[in-house]
Amino acid sequence: MQNEPEVTVVRLGHRPGRDERMTTHVGLTARALGADRVVLPDNAGKSRDTIADITDRFGGPFSVECSGSQKALIRNWEGRVVHLTMYGERIQDVEADVRAASTDAPLLVVVGAEKVSFDVYEAADWNVGVTNQPHSEVAGLAVFLDRLFEGRELEREWEGAEQRVIPKATGKRVESVDEG
Amino acid sequence: MQNEPEVTVVRLGHRPGRDERMTTHVGLTARALGADRVVLPDNAGKSRDTIADITDRFGGPFSVECSGSQKALIRNWEGRVVHLTMYGERIQDVEADVRAASTDAPLLVVVGAEKVSFDVYEAADWNVGVTNQPHSEVAGLAVFLDRLFEGRELEREWEGAEQRVIPKATGKRVESVDEG
Repeated sequence: MQNEPEVTVVRLGHRPGRDERMTTHVGLTARALGADRVVLPDNAGKSRDTIADITDRFGGPFSVECSGSQKALIRNWEGRVVHLTMYGERIQDVEADVRAASTDAPLLVVVGAEKVSFDVYEAADWNVGVTNQPHSEVAGLAVFLDRLFEGRELEREWEGAEQRVIPKATGKRVESVDEG
Repeated sequence: MQNEPEVTVVRLGHRPGRDERMTTHVGLTARALGADRVVLPDNAGKSRDTIADITDRFGGPFSVECSGSQKALIRNWEGRVVHLTMYGERIQDVEADVRAASTDAPLLVVVGAEKVSFDVYEAADWNVGVTNQPHSEVAGLAVFLDRLFEGRELEREWEGAEQRVIPKATGKRVESVDEG
């Protein structure tokens, strides 16, 4: 988002078929809640296409890509790295530090699928638990981003959208966007 | 949670196989982030078993059940009903009202799967959008609960747990719980 910390989300691990929707939801949640970019494993092309399609229709800027070298991305990241894990420090204890550190360096948020190897824990500046309970990487990412941006992501404006949902007390209202 | 609004989450719609993980994640997110109960469709027995197993191991109180009459549950609910939908009013505009109304009446939070019929929009006291963007019902539920409880759900204690994760800066630490 403009005038906000630059945030990239990287999704580790993807089993085609089985993980399609979870990976897609990680990417769509990253986009909707203020991240700038998501990097998926290189076998997650189907999820990438869905996320790119939503961005075309509902706006950006947001970028999605597949990569075969996510471990290297984490290792060589020039900025700070947060790894979301139920084993980590409590988000309410570390979020202020993460927020402060993100104002002048890009933040990489690592979201695991199944088992995450120990070198990811070591490469992270913070291992962060959104509760220390087993639940959902999508839920953890959502709460983390909402707290990182302190709700400002809910006010963001979208560029280049073809359509826009108008908030409504009952029913649905979708408008075409004419930016001409 | 004790001393908090009573919250039940109801998941509408479930296609066995295809929706297993999303439905499981809705239930686990409800549990981890402070709801008291989740009601799943009656064909979601596999998700119910997973959620019950996690509750046995990591504690409660939290209840999970399957029901064939979710529409009736919504229609006859004695309390307030929130339906989470990308077409709804902005969460930042209505959360204070929902919070105030939940202090003295149980809250039902409706989480849809695919297409939700119009009578659900009409039965809801609030249709609420966690952004008006397409993303994930799990993400929407997570942010909604975190805002409803204003973060207090992160401090809750768990009863009857067999094991407990101890927050850790690097690595994993899980302890057996001896409540004797």
